Amino acid sequence: MQGRADIALIGLAVMGQNLVLNLDDRGFRVAVYNRTLSKVTDFLEGPARGTRVLGATSLEELVGMLSRPRRIMFMVRAGTAVDELIGQLLPLLEEGDILIDGGNSHFQDTQRRVTELLRQGIHFLGMGVSGGEEGARHGPSLMPGGSSAAWPAVQEIFQAIAARAEGGSPCCEWMGEGGAGHFVKMVHNGIEYGDMQLIAEAYDLMRNLAGLAPDAIAEVFRVWNQGPLNSYLIGITAEILRHKESGGGFLIDSILDAAGQKGTGRWTAANALDLGVPLTLIAEAVWARSLSGLREERLTASSLLQGPKSPTPGISAETFLEGLEKALLASKILSYAQGYMLLRAADREFGWGLNLGGIALVWRAGCIIRSAFLDRIHGAFKRRADLENLLLDADFRQEIGAAQDSWRRIVAQAVQAGIPVPAMASGLAFYDGYRRERLPASLIQAQRDYFGAHTYERVDRPRGQFFHTDWSGTQT
Amino acid sequence: MQGRADIALIGLAVMGQNLVLNLDDRGFRVAVYNRTLSKVTDFLEGPARGTRVLGATSLEELVGMLSRPRRIMFMVRAGTAVDELIGQLLPLLEEGDILIDGGNSHFQDTQRRVTELLRQGIHFLGMGVSGGEEGARHGPSLMPGGSSAAWPAVQEIFQAIAARAEGGSPCCEWMGEGGAGHFVKMVHNGIEYGDMQLIAEAYDLMRNLAGLAPDAIAEVFRVWNQGPLNSYLIGITAEILRHKESGGGFLIDSILDAAGQKGTGRWTAANALDLGVPLTLIAEAVWARSLSGLREERLTASSLLQGPKSPTPGISAETFLEGLEKALLASKILSYAQGYMLLRAADREFGWGLNLGGIALVWRAGCIIRSAFLDRIHGAFKRRADLENLLLDADFRQEIGAAQDSWRRIVAQAVQAGIPVPAMASGLAFYDGYRRERLPASLIQAQRDYFGAHTYERVDRPRGQFFHTDWSGTQT
Repeated sequence: MQGRADIALIGLAVMGQNLVLNLDDRGFRVAVYNRTLSKVTDFLEGPARGTRVLGATSLEELVGMLSRPRRIMFMVRAGTAVDELIGQLLPLLEEGDILIDGGNSHFQDTQRRVTELLRQGIHFLGMGVSGGEEGARHGPSLMPGGSSAAWPAVQEIFQAIAARAEGGSPCCEWMGEGGAGHFVKMVHNGIEYGDMQLIAEAYDLMRNLAGLAPDAIAEVFRVWNQGPLNSYLIGITAEILRHKESGGGFLIDSILDAAGQKGTGRWTAANALDLGVPLTLIAEAVWARSLSGLREERLTASSLLQGPKSPTPGISAETFLEGLEKALLASKILSYAQGYMLLRAADREFGWGLNLGGIALVWRAGCIIRSAFLDRIHGAFKRRADLENLLLDADFRQEIGAAQDSWRRIVAQAVQAGIPVPAMASGLAFYDGYRRERLPASLIQAQRDYFGAHTYERVDRPRGQFFHTDWSGTQT
Repeated sequence: MQGRADIALIGLAVMGQNLVLNLDDRGFRVAVYNRTLSKVTDFLEGPARGTRVLGATSLEELVGMLSRPRRIMFMVRAGTAVDELIGQLLPLLEEGDILIDGGNSHFQDTQRRVTELLRQGIHFLGMGVSGGEEGARHGPSLMPGGSSAAWPAVQEIFQAIAARAEGGSPCCEWMGEGGAGHFVKMVHNGIEYGDMQLIAEAYDLMRNLAGLAPDAIAEVFRVWNQGPLNSYLIGITAEILRHKESGGGFLIDSILDAAGQKGTGRWTAANALDLGVPLTLIAEAVWARSLSGLREERLTASSLLQGPKSPTPGISAETFLEGLEKALLASKILSYAQGYMLLRAADREFGWGLNLGGIALVWRAGCIIRSAFLDRIHGAFKRRADLENLLLDADFRQEIGAAQDSWRRIVAQAVQAGIPVPAMASGLAFYDGYRRERLPASLIQAQRDYFGAHTYERVDRPRGQFFHTDWSGTQT
């Protein structure tokens, strides 16, 4: 064995293999292990042939190959497999060693593991890894969090293999303590759900309200991709919509309209409920997928439930498309604002010291939601680190203000024409609620006091003073 | 001691006390116990003076007072207090005895307790109790579920004390096995959140779009209360809005617009996420309360964020109010349809044998969402026990079809005028999505296949066959 390895990687599925090759490309010496040992051999004789990657046939051997402090990353199935692996590694480790979980663990598990392992002198990092197989191989977006004392010992390695944003800065920044890294990855996925649903709604409106064909819509997305909406998802949407089948039809028309989900969007919405953060747009996106899954019911309903009786008023395609671009942009700003509300609320709840501006930096390249837009979010937090809400940033509020008339017109047209735009509409409702000095929640408080004596506060008295009214006059 | 007691009640807070008095009124002999013993004395010498209620000074004594099988109901704080009490009671019980938890337990806890106790020969019931203090005293809505073998032994008692719907039938029906009773109560509360938010939105539109004063709006609600919207909540809203302060102003204008929540609405939405049921309207209602709570932020935002630039077109109050009544009714049908989707999905998941028609019966009186409307839901399930969705019922789909043009107009006007109607708008978006034969989820599937090779199904191939496309042409 010539020299010790810089880092170990356990779990040689495609993501793990690609991360190893990426690390090797960047000059790091990697030792690998996999429970099914043949995978190690296959990897060394296959994709890793000609590299400096070392194979281990046991965890003992793997640990023995590493320089100190040992850096051991694993890409294994989230859940008990992670706890089992940690249990097997623990007796082999020494104080100061570093474990890095690059899988899709729930942030609460990571939170727990960081605390438990720190008691035993081991640093645990939970790192969100985004960008799929391609990202892992050539530059993922990395969201490390956990035991912050370990960050200096891994920073160079992970920043070296991460994607690079325009200007060359790596898409890997320290996110915060505890489960921060995996939480940020979860919110990334939630935002991805929102972005995808918004694009689907825009497509639907172009198709079914403006009557455009898929290739014409592809062209619209291609043009939008040069403007403020520029992003990976808009780019691939253009490519998808122009794709034809050998028979000549558009492939999009043959794809079944029942969307799957892997759970992280649902986790995001569930956490927002837990933390009392109104993450309405992303939740609508999650549920739009659920609704799409009720395909048989929809087929029945489509022949039974009535649509609008009044004919849709004629629309001018050009004005419509211009307005739609603005509606999409405004909805997107709103969705990210809600996502950042969730990040901030979680940070306050868990005390992670979350790096809000850094999150935008990390998402600028390598991941699914990568876009120019994220530079602007970074800018907003650079201007004001304690920015309470993206909507209050001078730049974003000006932009959403300029877009809102179009946003309203598009949503109103969709509503009148019977085309569902749940994400755009819920975003707009949130915008209009957020900018209200007074909401009708006063009536809800009165109702709660009426039927349950829950009491209420008054606008002309300090918070924390509670009043009750004998509404019906029947109480004694 | 003259004769044994029919039932015991543990936990003499107001709800517990009132249930005891109600039981006593109906001729049942009740034995009571409370951990703080002075509460027993206070109760017997106060509200229960002159009744046949028996007081016990220990759990042993309480159990000894009961005829067999023993029926022991408790109204204690949900959570560990329930498990502790069960632990203390268990050594005192015999096979076939019945425990009834009338508190606000989470249905998963009830589910667990039913199973665990049945192994020890004890029947456990989780019973939702709705109607607050008044309901407990004079007739609550009761939602019992759990160990079904015990139902015949308690049916007479609970149906005797329950509220009576028009026609005299008691608002207490067997809900189903396991945690069914507490689940139904949770969904009741979620639906209550939806109803209250919809009423708040209607109020807001009358106030801020039509420019009506609170007493004029009260009058509108009073009139609506004679029609299809007739319900307890509409009735109390009319009373609330005409309430004046001694200074002459309307009380509603002095109540702080930050709405509280006790968590059951949030639980309902979280369960819907877990089960993949698009419960969009209730979730919007929960989050509207969260948003109302961000009062300081809203005050800042109200001076910074722009509203609609174009003036709101003039509306005719009469047409507007007629349309609003229909929009509210359509939204309400939609909300209940979503609530029943959740009930059905939970039933399929947990195998409770849920009594869907019976649920509507139980909610007709005694609880917060009581209304004439629930008779119609009962009717729908009577016509077709296997009705997949309320929206597909001939009666409801005709009604929502007749209301939808108004619904669209109202939502579009609100959107244009900058007044948030998150619940009405999300309901309408769901309606329009549900009746779509094809949704743009096909694009989402294509995107997922593009960036993550998640594969897709095709409309022209059987379900379960998965396809992948090399979208960008770069794969080998």
